[in-house]
Amino acid sequence: MKALVYRGPGLKAIEDRPKPEIQAPSDAIVKIVKTTICGTDLHILKGDVTTCAPGRILGHEGVGIVDSIGGGVTAFHVGDRVLISCISSCGKCDYCRRGMYSHCATGGWILGNEIDGTQAEYVRTPHADTSLYPIPAGADEEAMVMLSDILPTGFECGVLNGKVAPGSTVAIVGAGPIGLAALLTAQFYSPSEIIMIDLDDNRLEIARQFGATQTINSADGQAAEKVRALTDGRGVDTAIEAVGIPATFLLCEELVGPGGVIANVGVHGVKVDLHLELLWAKNITITTRLVDTVTTPMLLKTVQSKKLDPGRLITHRFKLDQILDAYDIFGRAAETHALKVIIEA
Amino acid sequence: MKALVYRGPGLKAIEDRPKPEIQAPSDAIVKIVKTTICGTDLHILKGDVTTCAPGRILGHEGVGIVDSIGGGVTAFHVGDRVLISCISSCGKCDYCRRGMYSHCATGGWILGNEIDGTQAEYVRTPHADTSLYPIPAGADEEAMVMLSDILPTGFECGVLNGKVAPGSTVAIVGAGPIGLAALLTAQFYSPSEIIMIDLDDNRLEIARQFGATQTINSADGQAAEKVRALTDGRGVDTAIEAVGIPATFLLCEELVGPGGVIANVGVHGVKVDLHLELLWAKNITITTRLVDTVTTPMLLKTVQSKKLDPGRLITHRFKLDQILDAYDIFGRAAETHALKVIIEA
Repeated sequence: MKALVYRGPGLKAIEDRPKPEIQAPSDAIVKIVKTTICGTDLHILKGDVTTCAPGRILGHEGVGIVDSIGGGVTAFHVGDRVLISCISSCGKCDYCRRGMYSHCATGGWILGNEIDGTQAEYVRTPHADTSLYPIPAGADEEAMVMLSDILPTGFECGVLNGKVAPGSTVAIVGAGPIGLAALLTAQFYSPSEIIMIDLDDNRLEIARQFGATQTINSADGQAAEKVRALTDGRGVDTAIEAVGIPATFLLCEELVGPGGVIANVGVHGVKVDLHLELLWAKNITITTRLVDTVTTPMLLKTVQSKKLDPGRLITHRFKLDQILDAYDIFGRAAETHALKVIIEA
Repeated sequence: MKALVYRGPGLKAIEDRPKPEIQAPSDAIVKIVKTTICGTDLHILKGDVTTCAPGRILGHEGVGIVDSIGGGVTAFHVGDRVLISCISSCGKCDYCRRGMYSHCATGGWILGNEIDGTQAEYVRTPHADTSLYPIPAGADEEAMVMLSDILPTGFECGVLNGKVAPGSTVAIVGAGPIGLAALLTAQFYSPSEIIMIDLDDNRLEIARQFGATQTINSADGQAAEKVRALTDGRGVDTAIEAVGIPATFLLCEELVGPGGVIANVGVHGVKVDLHLELLWAKNITITTRLVDTVTTPMLLKTVQSKKLDPGRLITHRFKLDQILDAYDIFGRAAETHALKVIIEA
């Protein structure tokens, strides 16, 4: 089968690989229908993710059709159309039983990282019963791909950890796909302001279309002052960090108000300065989270009930044999205006 | 009247000062019966607290007798015995109405900082109705002094923010008075382990007497490894930072487990390194808090019902005219084994 393979920092290739086989009774083999590329895949290609070895098939998102199942799988059958969660969870370990699937003792984010992923014609999904979701009849499968990772990530790591609440003020730093996913799902909770901050005017325009009440281009270094001006001098109740570099985390430290939350969503490659000499008495909370995908069933319902249209995040479409072009377009998003790209297998 | 006055970094003196007078209808003048010295007073004397100007009478803790009241005070009368909260709160501003008294628009931590404090024969307490507490008849007034700051601080900033829970694992870094206050109040919630970490074997012995299940002297740099060995390799559910320097905050980053909380209590003078490259995916929470003293009435009840004996924190007693000796003893705590010192006015 064809697959996109990580070949070490800066290197990737389309290769012919054997079709995966059942290795454990809880496995399923899924024929990929549609997959996508994540910002995290770009991190892997930079060499930031040391758990991902050269030779790995990338990709941790997608929808497909169950091709075969192990003897222990009972919730899915051959031919079922399924959503593949970016998080594999056994459902049995201490972390899973706390709902912290991200830290599953034999799972977590392993797809396209520690085991072969979804940017291929087929993928082996471990712990299939508790890592796949049935796709409701009539659902838009392309939009469903957004539920593998990006929407639960923006929602759980940003909106829920950030305690977005009716009447509250929210700033989202980074209007990429994850920041926009947080923007879409923050609106479930009716905050009074959602201020989107980015360096890219095109993305800020999209944020306005997606429901941001204010947008700030932070290129002039005045974003924190502008946020204070919009919030009676106080700063925001929730600052969502959706970039993953020291400058954007620092901006969140500056714009969060007393009693507020900085919800980190960004994948960071280096340490940041935490200004506790200013923040120790400010009664703030900082959260980090690898998505647990505990809200995937809930998000599926919001899509079915038209409260959420994740298809709005999709800007480009490719066939699997064009995936190198897809990476190129996705990697030059500022020029190409790409948000999420769909790869059809 | 006699008062302990801050005279600039490194400088303090006992001075004769005029007895304070009512300035606003919500003021009370309280004749001090007993006060104490806080680690924060030592921070002021180092010059770390820029809001505290030379000439300021220090002290933000104490019990006393109402000497006079402004025309707007209705909850207290001349002659009432009262506990003075370290936090002055108007009860009316947005922050007060959210229960965040620490950030009261016209109060917060101002006593012995922005206005004259309690290390004197008399103190003016603004917002008296909502900043003083009646002392129950028969209460041990000396023990009550511990409720002005240290116990609500250890409890709110450490135990409550740290989400200490039945069966959970707790590490407290710093066995000074604040760390010990957190240790005493953490036991309300029946955690399975409370691991106290300090450099001082005397304080660790006191921590064992106060209920620590494990103690670790961190001088060998192996504290994080030892904590992991005590917690099935996972790290703790709650790490309470009760020192306020980069090394102890970093230790908390190392010993908190996935899904855990770092509850900062320490007063920090410089920034710290936050290792988001390791923590972004660890699902942790970091909290900061200046005590709100919202739990003071509850803590009073726990003292009255003998669930809490804050008098155990008191090691030394002085008269007000010996307060320079008291500062000396308190400032050399490693040698003198001082925890909290009582100053009798």
